[in-house]
Amino acid sequence: MHEFELIKDYFQKLSIKLPSALNLNDDVFFDKKNKLVVSVDTYTEGNHFIDFKKPELVIKKIIRSSISDLICKAVKPKYYFISASGNKKKFSKSNLSKISKSLNQEQNKYKISLSGGDTVFSNKLSFTITSIGFANDIIYRNKAKINDDIYVSGNLGDSYLGLLVLKKKLKLNHQLTKYFINQYFMPNIQLKLTDQIKKFANTSIDISDGLLADLNKMINNQKLSYKLFLDDIPVSNNLKKVLDHKKLSKINYVSNGDDYQVLFSASTNKRRIIKKIASNCRVKLTKIGSIQSQDKKTSIVDGKNVQISLKNKGYFHNF
Amino acid sequence: MHEFELIKDYFQKLSIKLPSALNLNDDVFFDKKNKLVVSVDTYTEGNHFIDFKKPELVIKKIIRSSISDLICKAVKPKYYFISASGNKKKFSKSNLSKISKSLNQEQNKYKISLSGGDTVFSNKLSFTITSIGFANDIIYRNKAKINDDIYVSGNLGDSYLGLLVLKKKLKLNHQLTKYFINQYFMPNIQLKLTDQIKKFANTSIDISDGLLADLNKMINNQKLSYKLFLDDIPVSNNLKKVLDHKKLSKINYVSNGDDYQVLFSASTNKRRIIKKIASNCRVKLTKIGSIQSQDKKTSIVDGKNVQISLKNKGYFHNF
Repeated sequence: MHEFELIKDYFQKLSIKLPSALNLNDDVFFDKKNKLVVSVDTYTEGNHFIDFKKPELVIKKIIRSSISDLICKAVKPKYYFISASGNKKKFSKSNLSKISKSLNQEQNKYKISLSGGDTVFSNKLSFTITSIGFANDIIYRNKAKINDDIYVSGNLGDSYLGLLVLKKKLKLNHQLTKYFINQYFMPNIQLKLTDQIKKFANTSIDISDGLLADLNKMINNQKLSYKLFLDDIPVSNNLKKVLDHKKLSKINYVSNGDDYQVLFSASTNKRRIIKKIASNCRVKLTKIGSIQSQDKKTSIVDGKNVQISLKNKGYFHNF
Repeated sequence: MHEFELIKDYFQKLSIKLPSALNLNDDVFFDKKNKLVVSVDTYTEGNHFIDFKKPELVIKKIIRSSISDLICKAVKPKYYFISASGNKKKFSKSNLSKISKSLNQEQNKYKISLSGGDTVFSNKLSFTITSIGFANDIIYRNKAKINDDIYVSGNLGDSYLGLLVLKKKLKLNHQLTKYFINQYFMPNIQLKLTDQIKKFANTSIDISDGLLADLNKMINNQKLSYKLFLDDIPVSNNLKKVLDHKKLSKINYVSNGDDYQVLFSASTNKRRIIKKIASNCRVKLTKIGSIQSQDKKTSIVDGKNVQISLKNKGYFHNF
């Protein structure tokens, strides 16, 4: 855990201690009486996005990351607010016009409205996005049941490949470079699921930190374990191509975050309806494992049912 | 206008251009159908607050500044979200515990609940506060009528004196030093007005930038002018004492912002009810001038009806 994460943790505990906070353990705030759902997140250069060379892409990544918090809880985002901190160079006329164009595209794509915000001077570039939606109910964390299937939407790992390419840690041909960088900046979030997911999911989260980290978060207050099938974790044809070609180990590339896909658990008797809805909505929903009672050990197994050992064991702890 | 203000302005125009933003010209966002009122503001060290030597006071100033936006629109704040950017020194355990204690006090005083937020690492300290309330209607800007009286709640100028003391530009005795610094950090915002102000105000704003700046903002889209009576602008006994003793000119000390008092206009036939409500609620409401048709020149006059010339003429322009 990054040292600053400890502060974040402390800050969260601090706010939970206050006689208020309804559900700070979930990614969103939900006021059932007023049907209000709110998500607030801050994104800083060098941390949540690599740099600001492509403001038109960065702003898309940030907006999608923010509304993804609502979407995974079955809530349609409606309004968003941007509070931007930066300097004159970062907010040059040219950059502002690129940002404006991108916001327009995102608004049309996701049916959201910029509703306000603030702009302050700072040499450290950051954006705080407040996303708001309305819902009679949401899907909470920590509501998984023993024997639930674990599902994920879309494909995982593309965004991480894009990051590696941007960081020049991986060299690919022009076409693949473009593909993965686009996936990094413009994750394919699943707005279509918001109306459907309540029909089958017991619990859900969006994958921002990485499959395993977020799976652990999704059930962190429950005395449960899980089993995942590595071969079933969905990846794009392009990622498969790269993994095969470069002889890279799949597990190291599918759990590094920024996917903004929906991770959820559902009872096994929902398998048929999930298949049907996935097909009707043209959303890829893949069963990748199951929830177990705590006396079974959490594991990830390969095609031969052999347990995989992970480089970064940290993923299994401290959530 | 500060150069960065131009960017802020541009950013705002940019968001207005987008096919969304209902009322970005007001300080709050209001969704009448969902009865939702939202204010988002970012506060940075060295700009919105002088430094972080007293985190327990800074956090109060920030919270009050944020909920003041709702209060002046006749909206009770209900939830607030804090997104904090800072480093380990700024968010030391000792500081976090001071912040926590202050938040608790503010929550009890103003009946608000911390409902979420985010914490990110940055060497530039800043806070973005999202405040949310619910209302059937709000009081808008730009709804003043010709001949309306202009009122202000509480006293003006104390916060600015506190800032001068903190900046060591003014030296006062221990007791006054403490008084004005407290007024700077803990402006006496008027929660009690939220239920009442709709009964008489035609238009309103909170005084964050300064009496004249905000008065200009309040009616910036209207073809109107105003006349203010300097002698009637309410100040505390302590401020009166300092102005008298140091032979300082009142006009230079009552329009510098951070007062977080409510400025509003009301028809002259509301004078009786305003007096009655002020007395019942124990809120000081002072008539300080009137709205005029545009063929009369905006003016501030002293006790002898002589027009005052202002050092900073900028206040009259560009709003």
